[in-house]
Amino acid sequence: MNKKERLENSMEQKRGRASILFEHPPVIRSIASVAGTKEGKGPLGSLFDAVEQDDKMGKENWEEAESAIQEKAARMAMAKAYLTEGKIDYCFAGDLLGQLIATSFGTGSLKIPLLGLYGACATMGEALGLGAMTVNAGYGENVLVMASSHFATAEKEFRFPLAYGSQRPFSATWTVTGCGAVVIEKAVQGNDKVKIRGLTTGRVIDLGVRDSMNMGAAMAPAAALTVLQNFEDLNVDETFYDRIITGDLGRTGGTIFCQMMREKGYEIKDRYMDCGIEIFDGSDQDTHSGGSGCGCSAVTLCAMILPKLQSGQWKRVLFLPTGALLSNISFNEGQTIPGIAHAVILESPKV
Amino acid sequence: MNKKERLENSMEQKRGRASILFEHPPVIRSIASVAGTKEGKGPLGSLFDAVEQDDKMGKENWEEAESAIQEKAARMAMAKAYLTEGKIDYCFAGDLLGQLIATSFGTGSLKIPLLGLYGACATMGEALGLGAMTVNAGYGENVLVMASSHFATAEKEFRFPLAYGSQRPFSATWTVTGCGAVVIEKAVQGNDKVKIRGLTTGRVIDLGVRDSMNMGAAMAPAAALTVLQNFEDLNVDETFYDRIITGDLGRTGGTIFCQMMREKGYEIKDRYMDCGIEIFDGSDQDTHSGGSGCGCSAVTLCAMILPKLQSGQWKRVLFLPTGALLSNISFNEGQTIPGIAHAVILESPKV
Repeated sequence: MNKKERLENSMEQKRGRASILFEHPPVIRSIASVAGTKEGKGPLGSLFDAVEQDDKMGKENWEEAESAIQEKAARMAMAKAYLTEGKIDYCFAGDLLGQLIATSFGTGSLKIPLLGLYGACATMGEALGLGAMTVNAGYGENVLVMASSHFATAEKEFRFPLAYGSQRPFSATWTVTGCGAVVIEKAVQGNDKVKIRGLTTGRVIDLGVRDSMNMGAAMAPAAALTVLQNFEDLNVDETFYDRIITGDLGRTGGTIFCQMMREKGYEIKDRYMDCGIEIFDGSDQDTHSGGSGCGCSAVTLCAMILPKLQSGQWKRVLFLPTGALLSNISFNEGQTIPGIAHAVILESPKV
Repeated sequence: MNKKERLENSMEQKRGRASILFEHPPVIRSIASVAGTKEGKGPLGSLFDAVEQDDKMGKENWEEAESAIQEKAARMAMAKAYLTEGKIDYCFAGDLLGQLIATSFGTGSLKIPLLGLYGACATMGEALGLGAMTVNAGYGENVLVMASSHFATAEKEFRFPLAYGSQRPFSATWTVTGCGAVVIEKAVQGNDKVKIRGLTTGRVIDLGVRDSMNMGAAMAPAAALTVLQNFEDLNVDETFYDRIITGDLGRTGGTIFCQMMREKGYEIKDRYMDCGIEIFDGSDQDTHSGGSGCGCSAVTLCAMILPKLQSGQWKRVLFLPTGALLSNISFNEGQTIPGIAHAVILESPKV
């Protein structure tokens, strides 16, 4: 590649402030989703590759269980791609726990070079984006990307030990137990797999929300910021996408997000979805505002969004996991909850 | 770029299992280091860009102080590169705290697209590697990379509140208060800056060490694994490097690491250094095995390693931050401490 070509390549790839469009988009080679018991009983139950009957996965504690779920999803994604561990160049992975222990203990046995990521519940967006960037640049042939969460580990990490039986307000969400994993590869001629057409990387925004039981409100501005950046960078509007799908804003946050977009002149309501709303039955499953956690968007992506793109039911989707960047320490110190959202543009092979 | 060129590009870039060599290495455009009081009194004291007189940075708590240190280092690196925030395409950053709160609160005001990373104390290696990959592929012109730690936040997160006054064994390390930040850019003709020649991405290894007061022992196998992978991938040995510099193995871990390398047939002792040993005065500063934390390797890189490469005193260095992937939860549950190390090959412009 000579200098001029490198420059053209560079100009082609980067669009505006925070977006990349790939000339030859990498594709999703294989998909795996492992979900917990409650998720299995929800509307997407029949779509998961595996629904666990024991949320503890036969382990001694919840953290080990989450690691086991990650390992299972990773191995399933590799098996469905007919790849052994040695053929995976990199793994981009993350979870919600302090120091990413679900990932550290879940990926150790895989022996794959690991890039640990933390983007709160936006981690699957960050991982998909970096994975696609890596494959597109030729740094690797096959890259494994995944994110997990677990209801019980998250309750312990962020809120109260389960045994306290504390009550939850209606704006609170329910952390999804599960892991979604995909293998990304370079597209070849005649490839009929879902493409990662591009991405928009989010930045931190903090409008001063302090209520950890209403994280949808904390994340909605981040979602709006990233979508508006995407529209500006690519010079498109909401009609460019069949669906705009946030990670876990839930009912409360989703309403705020749509309202924010409306104020900016975009009516997205008819194409808006939220993984947190899709994954649980709002009337029956007592999950209040909806599901959350980085596993929420990851398993919904794998079980529902990618298959609908694969079949051509949707042509183009803006997949937008949303993260609330709080910890129990920042919360206890009275801090606000900054948000971030990382978007990935997914395209059907039928486009 | 046609298909053949892409393939050649791909073959050129990836070497072996986990290493990338850049044909046109990105360079370090600017460097900034902000260190705490104790670090300022150590052997590298006069080399830091800023030494804080107040480790609390005038803030209400230690976490806010660490965020302020990150923000200061970031703004200094940008100023030294004559760049405003809008000219930085991405920020790759991380810290040791649960849910990366030092980074979330430290980078919010910068308004730069953020990729949050967690590699424990190996984070600066992970960030430099991903930053260089991003610039090399043309995804951005200028990328900000940084990692921080703070003695007081780390003690609270991992060990005991400071007020307990608990005693520390001689194998324990002292978490460095500080942040190192660099701006990476594409090399242009006649560029005289330090090059990021390549990288080797680490994977998780767990030999069963459980003593959180001896993290050097937990990380030494990870360091050896990454260095051996680097040698194998590039078909080189220890003589390829003027220095092999680990992040924070300290005296205890460093000895184990050198012994492990010796058993594999490599005598690295005469070119081995450890940032944790360099940063504090072992006889005077009561830091026992040495310094640690992702700030330790980050500030030592910025204050000592990069200047020595810049001047040509060293031609080529393998910079190898080392991470112990534990959390207080995994520790309390009796888990082992997995390790990871991410290496970056740094070259003097005089090479």
